[in-house]
Amino acid sequence: VKQSTLNITAVELGEHRHYMHKEIFDQPQAVIDTLEGRVTQDKVLVSTFGPGAESIFKSIERLHIIACGTSYHAGMVAKYWAEDIVRLPCQVEVASEFRYRNPVIEDNTLFVTISQSGETADTLAALQQIKAHAAESPEAFAPKNIPTLSICNVAESSLTREADLSYLTHAGPEIGVASTKSFTTQLVALALLLTCIGKVKKRISREREKHITQGLQKLPNLIQNALMHEQEIQNIAQDFADKNHALFLGRGTMYPIALEGALKLKEISYIHAEAYPAGELKHGPLALIDENMPVIAIAPLDDLLEKLKSNLQEVKARGGQMIVFEDERSDISSESGFKVVKATTNVGRITAPITYNILLQLLSYHVALIKGTDVDQPRNLAKSVTVE
Amino acid sequence: VKQSTLNITAVELGEHRHYMHKEIFDQPQAVIDTLEGRVTQDKVLVSTFGPGAESIFKSIERLHIIACGTSYHAGMVAKYWAEDIVRLPCQVEVASEFRYRNPVIEDNTLFVTISQSGETADTLAALQQIKAHAAESPEAFAPKNIPTLSICNVAESSLTREADLSYLTHAGPEIGVASTKSFTTQLVALALLLTCIGKVKKRISREREKHITQGLQKLPNLIQNALMHEQEIQNIAQDFADKNHALFLGRGTMYPIALEGALKLKEISYIHAEAYPAGELKHGPLALIDENMPVIAIAPLDDLLEKLKSNLQEVKARGGQMIVFEDERSDISSESGFKVVKATTNVGRITAPITYNILLQLLSYHVALIKGTDVDQPRNLAKSVTVE
Repeated sequence: VKQSTLNITAVELGEHRHYMHKEIFDQPQAVIDTLEGRVTQDKVLVSTFGPGAESIFKSIERLHIIACGTSYHAGMVAKYWAEDIVRLPCQVEVASEFRYRNPVIEDNTLFVTISQSGETADTLAALQQIKAHAAESPEAFAPKNIPTLSICNVAESSLTREADLSYLTHAGPEIGVASTKSFTTQLVALALLLTCIGKVKKRISREREKHITQGLQKLPNLIQNALMHEQEIQNIAQDFADKNHALFLGRGTMYPIALEGALKLKEISYIHAEAYPAGELKHGPLALIDENMPVIAIAPLDDLLEKLKSNLQEVKARGGQMIVFEDERSDISSESGFKVVKATTNVGRITAPITYNILLQLLSYHVALIKGTDVDQPRNLAKSVTVE
Repeated sequence: VKQSTLNITAVELGEHRHYMHKEIFDQPQAVIDTLEGRVTQDKVLVSTFGPGAESIFKSIERLHIIACGTSYHAGMVAKYWAEDIVRLPCQVEVASEFRYRNPVIEDNTLFVTISQSGETADTLAALQQIKAHAAESPEAFAPKNIPTLSICNVAESSLTREADLSYLTHAGPEIGVASTKSFTTQLVALALLLTCIGKVKKRISREREKHITQGLQKLPNLIQNALMHEQEIQNIAQDFADKNHALFLGRGTMYPIALEGALKLKEISYIHAEAYPAGELKHGPLALIDENMPVIAIAPLDDLLEKLKSNLQEVKARGGQMIVFEDERSDISSESGFKVVKATTNVGRITAPITYNILLQLLSYHVALIKGTDVDQPRNLAKSVTVE
């Protein structure tokens, strides 16, 4: 039996009614703790990922991310970043599908497994399967190059111990079953990982590295500002009192954030929430839209804003109730029939999905309060899925 | 203005109440027509895909499939086949996400675009983007090898004209907005494509090719047998009269089939149906399960059957109503609290997803009849999405 290293004050509720609420408000500090000692003078320390990280990162040509649930959504965000910013081909996959499908495991691929607890059964089994495959060397003099890296929140966890490299998110203990601060810190970890790979492989400039790290250092403040919208979001949550459905829409990195927002609402309010990439709306889900199906859209100020606006007009035309989280300059507020939260501004490609997600966490929390569910211990769910 | 080449008798309703019903029952013939002239003496004709197909297939090292809606689900099934059977790395992506995310386009990748009409706006734009990228050759003496192939149901369509290679599904005109026979024939096309690539690249044996083609030739009969379950499925559909939710579960290739089953139910019955890979159940959606959320599971006789059974026990323990489509030998029927359709048997890795999908088509059709919706022209949807 190991002595727990948890600091008891870290798990006290304090002024918060639920652990989930506390953990949502912990996030500025969790990001500071996760960056602490990993970023100095606008540089990410490659050695943070463990001994040999530099030569491993130099050697790889692609990424394959494997995870479950919320951690899978963090991986999905990272795919957009990896290809866009580092030009590194990246796949993301649900662990329970990967391990049973006879996948092609390519040489020079870095396999990244993500799990808060580091004990998620399917993710751990996938890691072990990859390692076994890497070890089967038909020719001893030509070993395969299939390194592994784990991102976890628990230092002594199986995933951390078994992977070649690891990154420990310093989110602190997460008690609420619905993951909040561990998702946020996983995204920070993935951003640092991609920055390191980009730097080592000379795919990003010194300027870009500086830009990314400065963005991450602004993140605690951006999250703090997002949290200031709690009252506004609490008011909007009233609209869900008599609702049993919701549709979340996003494009690009906001698509996995929409998935995560829908999952959170499912988990703690038992509302059947589903997410779609906004461009798929016309290919089926538009048939569902009526006054019983509120639509939540994430509308950052980016190249896709005009496309998203046109998607939202379609929803509005079908009687759907729209709730939009937008950039202060996205200017959807001028439209009638929309509830708009001017949530943030000046967010970058990496900080934007992390910041918008905070707003969706608050929404699901306040909807759950109205529904009267057991927020920290939702029915049927366990904190860590350590069995299949 | 082009003269339509449609045969008028092909679009008469005959004994059917709706085009969708007719098109579901057209499928044995549609498969025969799609195989006709493409498979002879247990061999797939590589030339079916167009001039130069053999050398293109020889040259490629990976597949990237791009589509929307139902066609995207066909692509997802093909990913499992491609990696499992041909050992060819394969990615599948929603067109509206691919085209706006600054993707890495790797050399020696065959890009496959799929669309019934061949005019789907986002899919066509993605194809044009790939071709533009392939044409940007920094060194004229080292041109990129990024060939394209389209799978469509309309001969004169833009996708067919613009891709390097093409395969025309011979599904015949599809009038119902919800796609049925075009999905089935897309899967047949993808199976033939992978067989050809496997053969040309010597990744599959002559025996395997024979096995696959013989399986496909049995498919019209397998579909016919599946259609015989209509009455039984019509009875089960009664359970949905007062339901507004449904959850579809599958593993492996049955996960995209679950997605397609859920999409069909959404489109024509306006029931909020969602699909999950069964292994993700514990990571969130289990919180939704109660007596108002019927769960539909696809349970073929394969290595994953025992895992699926344990997932179903969890659902049952939470009061969920279970409807299971199983292999005659899957033996879930002995469990109480389950409605089980012993739907098929002796299906292979390729014929199984196609066959199980037929049962889900019948389910969504009969639920829509009970709900009294406009089956062939569901609200808010168009047959071809030719604008963004």
